Amino acid sequence: MHDHDNPKNSGISRRQMLIAGGAMAAGAALSHFGGLVKHSLAKDGSTEKWPWPYEKLDPAATAAIAYEEWYRVYCGAAVINSVFSQLREKVGEPYLSFPVDSFVFLEGGMTGWGMTCGSNAGAAIVANCIIGPRTAGAHEGHLITTELFEWYSDAMLPIYKPETPKVTVDIVQTNSASPLCHLSVGRWMEKSGYPITSAERKDRCARVAASVAYHLVELLNQWHDGTYQSAGTHSPVKEFGITAQMNCMDCHGGDVPEPPL
Amino acid sequence: MHDHDNPKNSGISRRQMLIAGGAMAAGAALSHFGGLVKHSLAKDGSTEKWPWPYEKLDPAATAAIAYEEWYRVYCGAAVINSVFSQLREKVGEPYLSFPVDSFVFLEGGMTGWGMTCGSNAGAAIVANCIIGPRTAGAHEGHLITTELFEWYSDAMLPIYKPETPKVTVDIVQTNSASPLCHLSVGRWMEKSGYPITSAERKDRCARVAASVAYHLVELLNQWHDGTYQSAGTHSPVKEFGITAQMNCMDCHGGDVPEPPL
Repeated sequence: MHDHDNPKNSGISRRQMLIAGGAMAAGAALSHFGGLVKHSLAKDGSTEKWPWPYEKLDPAATAAIAYEEWYRVYCGAAVINSVFSQLREKVGEPYLSFPVDSFVFLEGGMTGWGMTCGSNAGAAIVANCIIGPRTAGAHEGHLITTELFEWYSDAMLPIYKPETPKVTVDIVQTNSASPLCHLSVGRWMEKSGYPITSAERKDRCARVAASVAYHLVELLNQWHDGTYQSAGTHSPVKEFGITAQMNCMDCHGGDVPEPPL
Repeated sequence: MHDHDNPKNSGISRRQMLIAGGAMAAGAALSHFGGLVKHSLAKDGSTEKWPWPYEKLDPAATAAIAYEEWYRVYCGAAVINSVFSQLREKVGEPYLSFPVDSFVFLEGGMTGWGMTCGSNAGAAIVANCIIGPRTAGAHEGHLITTELFEWYSDAMLPIYKPETPKVTVDIVQTNSASPLCHLSVGRWMEKSGYPITSAERKDRCARVAASVAYHLVELLNQWHDGTYQSAGTHSPVKEFGITAQMNCMDCHGGDVPEPPL
């Protein structure tokens, strides 16, 4: 690793950077944060040319697809396919060549381990496939990813309400204070009283996937329009001296270790 | 979500299942664990035909590539490219069409948030792209993923020692008891005394990526030979009633909440 500091403080978008001084300016700015970057060019895969062609999508329509797709491939692949299935139709390649369904394993925070919520991981994959990696000179994929994690942690989820819900009881909203599945699902289970195997919990997660897909497309549309400005504030390596969330005491209690500096 | 129970207790590999009764037998067995699976067929993407062609790789050579690639694209993309760069040469498509470098964002547990160690996430992507998702009737991708998370949690890492190390001091080994970046890096920093920004910590993570790539290829080679038997034992939903790791008290202390059942 290197500095995982959030370069949002530069306050300028990639498009603005390109206007300001060409692609090399973006690369130079990024090298400030990723001191180990040796190459600014991607490998030579046929889909490793960024950004991928993107057409603006309707957030509500995208959310509706994610909700339905959850019941086929679960959170991570549902979010990926909510965007890529539309771009397969509107654009074609390279979306046709992306193996969306391979990402079923993102379910339950990766095969049930409760780590990164699959909706967050799926959204990160979408943003970074379309926009490209920071090592290739684009930083909005990184910024949209970390902003989404923070948005997810702060939001009362799920926001999305399906027109034709598969579960008709009210689904309570909860705040996870974390992008992790275990905390997101656990805090919802605690407040709602529904177990993990319930239809209500499943529908809650389908609605979370839809909520994330909705906001992801809002951010991608801004990026496409050249108006994206990161709202992220979390710079763990700079603030805490370790890769981390923002709420150390949630797990550590009062006994937060001091990292070597 | 659905049951995230580990189907390893079936004790038979996918190849054995195919021998025993055709692809539908595997699909039927999986439906026992994923009760919501409505379709057994993947979407119609050009790369969504599993398994992808695979040729056995040399674990040591793969680890050496991962170590070097860490310094270009960091943990997650390094593990992916350690396998896919070789298969691009040996096989060609669909590996040429996979956007490896988009997965730079896996660094630092996803843009520095300390969640799933990128080496683990990268290994999961490799296994599930090659073998396919359980929703398409193959379960070894899921099993290799969860087994790798458990192996990583139990191992003293890093195991891999580069022939030409970029850092020549001894790199101590630590046990993370978790597949999470924050715990893996944090416990190593605590024992070694090196900060996150040090060359030693970076080389430690490069060696961890190489160690994971090594074991991933061992498992993929077993799968290719039809001899793979999952060594995973973690079934969080069944054991704990929530998506989770296995060591609740590590974060909760003595106050582990009871999930609704």
